[in-house]
Amino acid sequence: MSDVTRVYLDDAAGAPVLPEVLEALRGLPAANPSSLHAEGRAARAALDRARDMVAEELHADRGDITFTSSGTEAVNLAIFGVARRLPKSAGIVTWAAEHQSVLAAMRRLQADGHGVTIAPVDRFARPALEAINAGTALVSIGLANNEVGTLMPVAEVVARAHAAGALVHVDACAGPRWIAPPLDADLLSLSGHKLGGGAGGALYVRDGVRLEPLLHGGPQEWGRRAGREDVGAATAIAAALKACGRQRPMRSRIAAAQAATLRATLERCGGRITGADERLPNFATATFAGRRGEDMLLALDLAGVAASSGSACASGSLDPSHVLLAMGLSMDEALGSLRLTTGYTTADDDVAKASAVLTSILAPATARA
Amino acid sequence: MSDVTRVYLDDAAGAPVLPEVLEALRGLPAANPSSLHAEGRAARAALDRARDMVAEELHADRGDITFTSSGTEAVNLAIFGVARRLPKSAGIVTWAAEHQSVLAAMRRLQADGHGVTIAPVDRFARPALEAINAGTALVSIGLANNEVGTLMPVAEVVARAHAAGALVHVDACAGPRWIAPPLDADLLSLSGHKLGGGAGGALYVRDGVRLEPLLHGGPQEWGRRAGREDVGAATAIAAALKACGRQRPMRSRIAAAQAATLRATLERCGGRITGADERLPNFATATFAGRRGEDMLLALDLAGVAASSGSACASGSLDPSHVLLAMGLSMDEALGSLRLTTGYTTADDDVAKASAVLTSILAPATARA
Repeated sequence: MSDVTRVYLDDAAGAPVLPEVLEALRGLPAANPSSLHAEGRAARAALDRARDMVAEELHADRGDITFTSSGTEAVNLAIFGVARRLPKSAGIVTWAAEHQSVLAAMRRLQADGHGVTIAPVDRFARPALEAINAGTALVSIGLANNEVGTLMPVAEVVARAHAAGALVHVDACAGPRWIAPPLDADLLSLSGHKLGGGAGGALYVRDGVRLEPLLHGGPQEWGRRAGREDVGAATAIAAALKACGRQRPMRSRIAAAQAATLRATLERCGGRITGADERLPNFATATFAGRRGEDMLLALDLAGVAASSGSACASGSLDPSHVLLAMGLSMDEALGSLRLTTGYTTADDDVAKASAVLTSILAPATARA
Repeated sequence: MSDVTRVYLDDAAGAPVLPEVLEALRGLPAANPSSLHAEGRAARAALDRARDMVAEELHADRGDITFTSSGTEAVNLAIFGVARRLPKSAGIVTWAAEHQSVLAAMRRLQADGHGVTIAPVDRFARPALEAINAGTALVSIGLANNEVGTLMPVAEVVARAHAAGALVHVDACAGPRWIAPPLDADLLSLSGHKLGGGAGGALYVRDGVRLEPLLHGGPQEWGRRAGREDVGAATAIAAALKACGRQRPMRSRIAAAQAATLRATLERCGGRITGADERLPNFATATFAGRRGEDMLLALDLAGVAASSGSACASGSLDPSHVLLAMGLSMDEALGSLRLTTGYTTADDDVAKASAVLTSILAPATARA
């Protein structure tokens, strides 16, 4: 990394912590919020403030918000929390291009004998809605696909699910930096690091929806999550959500123009753009048949551009992206994917530099041994 | 809190973050450790360093350490992780004065049909060892009781459990500030905030012991815990554990003298000391029949002394301490408990001030309406 100016185009894997978050964390009380003394009450007040902020951004009540340690935990709490209170015959529906935290929880439920359907998606990662039917009791849908950015038809999914009497969990870990989370979900999960708000997570649970906890112990978080509350993580995600709520329109306009430039570059370099036109504004993704994602990443990295080949959660492995395979791409295409995602501080100069680097690395589109 | 100098005697509910931890957190890489680019690799390296530090303190290998979001999560992962891979007929043993995170997990397992025994303790909170027998497959024992400080006979429990072929989880959330964690546990859980190391947790899992994860999703933490790794929390608990490892002998000597002074004061005020003589060195606990713990806490708080009436995790509720009831105390005694715990920065002057305050508040030992 030395003294080269780096261009960070991996916002979707981890957004830099926002200045508003650093400001909110300054001088935060450090005691245990469950303690009755003044130090504990100060920590409790800070936790309450964070909870109120998240609730306000979601147009919800304080009691609807549970803080978790990550987006994955929020997603798992929503899915396991509802499903483990359902009879095993109840239908549970999600789609094959959802995030690993959703799919792995669903596979666990399947192994436990629950009636889980992992329904197909189209070539843009959009869900087959007919999977939701009269026997469905729980549906989990993303706000947007985290690998290709396609926006999900959340309103239609919610309408269809509610008509069937099913609860809907919206995995809003990817997206709320750029678009507002929906207000009609029964459960909605958030990820701090994708908001520029540190490591925590949060789960909205509509009043009246009962959850089986994942973590058992003390009575923290309305009995939904035992363990000492992390006031810092709660404050960070709250401040980030609030900042994103204010900055979304402006940041999204800038991101849309920057990502369009990057997509044009990817196409010129021989890439096939992935995802629907209705996508998160900061996404520029493509596949390069005949190339390997890791090779492209490492070449970009050496040239000072931080990018991704899909979900960071899976990038430790050399498996092809389950999202791209679910979209019907060939194994060869799925192994040659590139994901560029701009952030709140991406400058037009960064995009110009990245475009030049991409062109020099990818232009001879005949590559691969 | 204003400008009064406060005396904080609630170390067991939350230890102030150590300067070594703040130092270790300075300039920590912020990217996603699962990302392949330079920013991600820097975060991965920091996470590896933290894991190596914890492993070194526990005389273990890097692969034995899983970071969690809290002590409760570490305890839950150990207990559920092992138990859910056992046949339901297998014996699982713990004791009635263990921490809520242990007991609540055990009750959940009981409800699921597992063969759980919650065995009795004596009046010092010490476990009845005969609960471990030939059918036992898993035992969970604390390093020390977190409400009265009694040291548990961990070596005897481990020996008896291993002779029966059972795995042993040692809940070392309370204690490692002051005494070294044992080296012969099969699983050992740690809590960051009790070490002066922020909000995270960690679980040691002996090589060869397989766990069913609680959180499902990406392949992080050797597949034992999905979700983006929290490099900050991992670094904090690692730095705290290392600092505690170095400072334990010196701090324990100081704490033992200070806590003895506080216990003498509590006795002079009419309190009955709780816990065994073999206790964590910083513990001064007593019950005051005829008084209410909350009333004493609030009076102390107003006079500038932060104390506790038992486990902070339960203090939101007005229920009597399950620990004291398990020790055979009457309901009246259990409701009148006081826990004073000194910390690394407690000064002799703090103890003197607290003793004076205690005397003025508690001395007229005839209280209560």
